[in-house]
Amino acid sequence: MADKLTDAARAMIDAPNFATMATVQPDGRPQLSVVWLKTDGDDLVVSTLKGRRKHKNILADPRVSVLVYPKEDPYRYVEVRGTATLEDEGGAELIQELSHRYDGVPHEEGDPANVRVLVRITPDRIVSHS
Amino acid sequence: MADKLTDAARAMIDAPNFATMATVQPDGRPQLSVVWLKTDGDDLVVSTLKGRRKHKNILADPRVSVLVYPKEDPYRYVEVRGTATLEDEGGAELIQELSHRYDGVPHEEGDPANVRVLVRITPDRIVSHS
Repeated sequence: MADKLTDAARAMIDAPNFATMATVQPDGRPQLSVVWLKTDGDDLVVSTLKGRRKHKNILADPRVSVLVYPKEDPYRYVEVRGTATLEDEGGAELIQELSHRYDGVPHEEGDPANVRVLVRITPDRIVSHS
Repeated sequence: MADKLTDAARAMIDAPNFATMATVQPDGRPQLSVVWLKTDGDDLVVSTLKGRRKHKNILADPRVSVLVYPKEDPYRYVEVRGTATLEDEGGAELIQELSHRYDGVPHEEGDPANVRVLVRITPDRIVSHS
């Protein structure tokens, strides 16, 4: 199973707009958080920290979903259901790129012990609403 | 397990701001959609249609999660993990109230065969981020 981003979905994701990401808790409940994201080829990439709830959940169950909409039009949204993989390489660069895109400033890591991880989401199914 | 909305969370939800709601798909994946919502006592209420994916998922597994943030400040968000119950009574009134709150106009049901349902979410755990 695989699905491709449309040009409209790609533009919405790279705008950049904030997204909500769902992972699966150990007991099967959904867990949500707000994320920065961008496209990388046919995938989406998101930054997180080692040890965060999201990171632990993905290690146990890589099935995630991401919903994004244009800030000015929440009625037009895209849900990307996909499979997440965790990559150490590129984690530090990604958070800087996203911080520049979303906030226009470099990211400052609050705790020097933080380890940044890149979450790569390969779409299995894309649902568009308008 | 039960958790209470803080005054800040309540104000954010009733602002009204758009929310993202997660349900559990039959295969255990998370499913997301954008929703209107409001508080009702200590619960959240959301409108849906009988037969919609969200409705079917809740019938099979009532565990849901809702994330909401102020439009002007996505970094300050609240996640409400809760248990959903479906109520026929009040469904038609709720969609009208939410339509007035969010859009300032009455809701017009696209298809006369649509049956509106009220989804009542009783919080089990509330996670606030700032």
